[in-house]
Amino acid sequence: MDSKVLGIVGGGQLGRMTVEAANRLNIKTNVLDAENAPAKQINSTGDHVTGPFNNAEKILELAKKCDVMTIEVEHVDAGALAKCGKPVYPSPDTIKLIQDKYAQKKYLQSKDIPVAEFEGVDSTIESCQKFGETYGYPFMLKSKRDAYDGKGNSVVKSADSIQLSLDELKSKELYAEKWAPFDCELAVMVVKELDGTVHTYPCVETRHVNNVCHTVYAPAAVSLEIQDNAKELAKRTVASLPDSGAGVFGVEMFLLYDGELLINEIAPRPHNSGHYTQDGCVTSQFEAHVRACVGLPLPEGATNFSTPATTAIMLNILGQPNEGEMKICERALATPGCALHLYGKESRVGRKLGHINIIGSNLAECNKKLHFLENGENLEEPDLEVGVIMGSDSDLPVMKAACEILTKFNVKFECRIMSAHRTPVEMTLYAETAEARGLKVIIAGAGGAAHLPGMVAASTALPVIGVPVKGSSLDGVDSLYSIVQMPRGVPVAAVAINNAMNAGLLAVRMLGINNAELRGKLNQFRETNRKEVAQKDARLNKVGFSNY
Amino acid sequence: MDSKVLGIVGGGQLGRMTVEAANRLNIKTNVLDAENAPAKQINSTGDHVTGPFNNAEKILELAKKCDVMTIEVEHVDAGALAKCGKPVYPSPDTIKLIQDKYAQKKYLQSKDIPVAEFEGVDSTIESCQKFGETYGYPFMLKSKRDAYDGKGNSVVKSADSIQLSLDELKSKELYAEKWAPFDCELAVMVVKELDGTVHTYPCVETRHVNNVCHTVYAPAAVSLEIQDNAKELAKRTVASLPDSGAGVFGVEMFLLYDGELLINEIAPRPHNSGHYTQDGCVTSQFEAHVRACVGLPLPEGATNFSTPATTAIMLNILGQPNEGEMKICERALATPGCALHLYGKESRVGRKLGHINIIGSNLAECNKKLHFLENGENLEEPDLEVGVIMGSDSDLPVMKAACEILTKFNVKFECRIMSAHRTPVEMTLYAETAEARGLKVIIAGAGGAAHLPGMVAASTALPVIGVPVKGSSLDGVDSLYSIVQMPRGVPVAAVAINNAMNAGLLAVRMLGINNAELRGKLNQFRETNRKEVAQKDARLNKVGFSNY
Repeated sequence: MDSKVLGIVGGGQLGRMTVEAANRLNIKTNVLDAENAPAKQINSTGDHVTGPFNNAEKILELAKKCDVMTIEVEHVDAGALAKCGKPVYPSPDTIKLIQDKYAQKKYLQSKDIPVAEFEGVDSTIESCQKFGETYGYPFMLKSKRDAYDGKGNSVVKSADSIQLSLDELKSKELYAEKWAPFDCELAVMVVKELDGTVHTYPCVETRHVNNVCHTVYAPAAVSLEIQDNAKELAKRTVASLPDSGAGVFGVEMFLLYDGELLINEIAPRPHNSGHYTQDGCVTSQFEAHVRACVGLPLPEGATNFSTPATTAIMLNILGQPNEGEMKICERALATPGCALHLYGKESRVGRKLGHINIIGSNLAECNKKLHFLENGENLEEPDLEVGVIMGSDSDLPVMKAACEILTKFNVKFECRIMSAHRTPVEMTLYAETAEARGLKVIIAGAGGAAHLPGMVAASTALPVIGVPVKGSSLDGVDSLYSIVQMPRGVPVAAVAINNAMNAGLLAVRMLGINNAELRGKLNQFRETNRKEVAQKDARLNKVGFSNY
Repeated sequence: MDSKVLGIVGGGQLGRMTVEAANRLNIKTNVLDAENAPAKQINSTGDHVTGPFNNAEKILELAKKCDVMTIEVEHVDAGALAKCGKPVYPSPDTIKLIQDKYAQKKYLQSKDIPVAEFEGVDSTIESCQKFGETYGYPFMLKSKRDAYDGKGNSVVKSADSIQLSLDELKSKELYAEKWAPFDCELAVMVVKELDGTVHTYPCVETRHVNNVCHTVYAPAAVSLEIQDNAKELAKRTVASLPDSGAGVFGVEMFLLYDGELLINEIAPRPHNSGHYTQDGCVTSQFEAHVRACVGLPLPEGATNFSTPATTAIMLNILGQPNEGEMKICERALATPGCALHLYGKESRVGRKLGHINIIGSNLAECNKKLHFLENGENLEEPDLEVGVIMGSDSDLPVMKAACEILTKFNVKFECRIMSAHRTPVEMTLYAETAEARGLKVIIAGAGGAAHLPGMVAASTALPVIGVPVKGSSLDGVDSLYSIVQMPRGVPVAAVAINNAMNAGLLAVRMLGINNAELRGKLNQFRETNRKEVAQKDARLNKVGFSNY
């Protein structure tokens, strides 16, 4: 790519992965950081600068060799960047604002971006006590500057523990924040192009352990409405920044129990919550950042998952005593669908050394692998795709034909007895949790009043196939009508009376929509059937009707 | 990763992408090739060797610095590798065998691997004429050695053109090969682990232009049976090699019109036909190669597509006059779902400079993007997901409810009139080509004898939803029975009489199986319905039944 040379201030893992993306596009990058920093290890053609990334002189030296400048860490000399004479993305004003978390919050508040209530405090017990009296305990005490990965934050549980927090933070520049009772933490990566066009990656859930990002779930397991709200808020937040430039921004927020969203903070660069995009999306956050900085296009849809089926969990790899983290890496290599990314850093306890992207086609599948990575044991629960349920064990002789077909096509299923009338609670619970358990289709068989398929369809968004089972009277027409005549809004796919085989085949056809291999097997099955009939025809034609 | 140091003989694009994969795993690589070769550009920590990759001395120098040796090109000094004192993957014997295409074919033949008929010939007209008389024209004349990307191959159309081919090949070591009348060319990447375990990546179709790989389609659009046969043959071929080592092998074959497979040739290294794995699979062919060489595990399933829905087309970027290839790169950057991989090479006409992986959830979608990349124009045909068909326009008032639902959920569909009895040929053609056109679900409405849904289901492996349309007599029960009472083997999903709305919803539920966003929308829809009923209930409760 005949493009601008990109200068990167900071050569840690974020810089490294930015360089990796630039390498693929033939885009030249020069890095400022220590000799052999992670980003430099994978770039031997760059005209790098050796020195601390917050050194003004070194920043100016780097800028001389580049056409555009960006950062991989915000704790840099924003003033040096402002006067470096080259375009800087994000803008030095934004970097400066984000360095001071208190100023950042003040600014966001002034732009009508929802944030938790906060106030500046002195580093005195009195000042903090006053805040506690007004806003209640617990509250958060935070350093205004140089905070990252939970460092610089302390929970003040009661008036008695204020001194403890002050000692812990060892800073004179503090502010206090009201405790936000949140359900979970969400994050959205926003990409801003030079012309102002803004894109969002999927809304994810971030989970922290000891204030450090532990896992990221993409997409977040919250309603679509909340995901959309989070994306809108993230866009609005980035738009509110004093930034005239381009690049990616990680926007972290709290989802409160009432559905309200509060902005926690903004990272003006690639962010840990977006690492899953390396394997979950065709265009990663790093490539998006590079493209935005050097002015290459980013089309609509480029920030989507690779396919609508794609789901991801990211697990950070932190250094453990005696390189204990290698255990998790080994498990990742032994697990299909896991991409291991190591940063070329020496192991040190608590240090971010790499991450693992677990990729699958639903969260249940990814969660099972995560469980293995973390605990080394396989979850006993199998990867189910279809639930075959029936109102009574007397339906089994009919329903087993569905099970046989699923077995033949190697589709994993469970077979359960569940009655709309005798176990209504269990039935509803089953339907409501089916999606989260990873089920994709439910086949329900019932006779007589035959409410089971319709009632299950009422409590899930999964497709439900109904098999009318023939009872002792009315020839199964009762069950057929009961199953097929669903009201508008709640569909059931009815098959013929007692034809559970077709229910199984229909489930396989549904699963085959996004599975070329399964469609191939279905076509094989159709061909076998065709041949069978052709053989019978040939025989009948040969031996005649009376000898057949 | 605390692992062995991998020496790579050759630093072109295959070496570069191998280094990229090794970088992610913290695996140290040293490369032998010219200064600033593509693979060296992205590795500044390696203890590289500068020199030609076929120089024995340099190979030995590289081996001294490494624990394990591999190659990215087979035209190296296999003798030097054999005595380098380090494990070499693939084995020098295999490399040597593959360097001589004639010896390779002889060997495969001796191992009962199917190949096209061939014979060694002198570089004389007489010798070639004799071959032509025995095996017919056209036939292939090939150099035994140093052939790649079609160089070293020539088609002999008739006895008159023998001299032309001899002049073209300018070689004394020749052999002739009978023309294989093939339907298409397939390829399978095989991974061999040190313990002998063998994995295969999906079977792909490769298409060549001027004897150079142009595009790769993954998976190949051939039956599952042929795909499985190709994988089995690829495994058997690799197992037949004199190789005691590990690594990936690209196995190229011809699919003849009668379904027979012939091995064309083997690449004992990462291969152009496996580039799609970088974005189509979580573990790429390059990472698999690295893992196999240094003895890291590769679990079963690691060579599958990222999700069962994943589909890919790879397009090579060849140098064009005046860097005309940049046009294709620009289009790739402007198209979502396209990953551009450039190799850090100077543009030269005909040179492989990079490739583009187009990733999607079906071939029709990827093909549309390929068309844009190659021709710069968007195919007018929309990305359809659902076909709504009906036996007569008189069914439209009923069927439009399905269209309304699909519109509401932003699912792309087409609406067509197709009668089982009046347009039987068109109907069958429609059903047979639906999958290839990218359709995922078909909704068919019909009244009376209502054969349409069942007849469509008989000619496709896609799920078919049947809507019984109420006619002037029998209250629609005729249509219902006709639609739902399908024989075993051919399922139709019947919904209630005239309830096309539920047919639309059922289609959305089916598409939602692998689409979290669509499931989110369905849950929103269910919630809206719930609220509507709750509001009506509240009103009825408030105003009483007589005022409602």
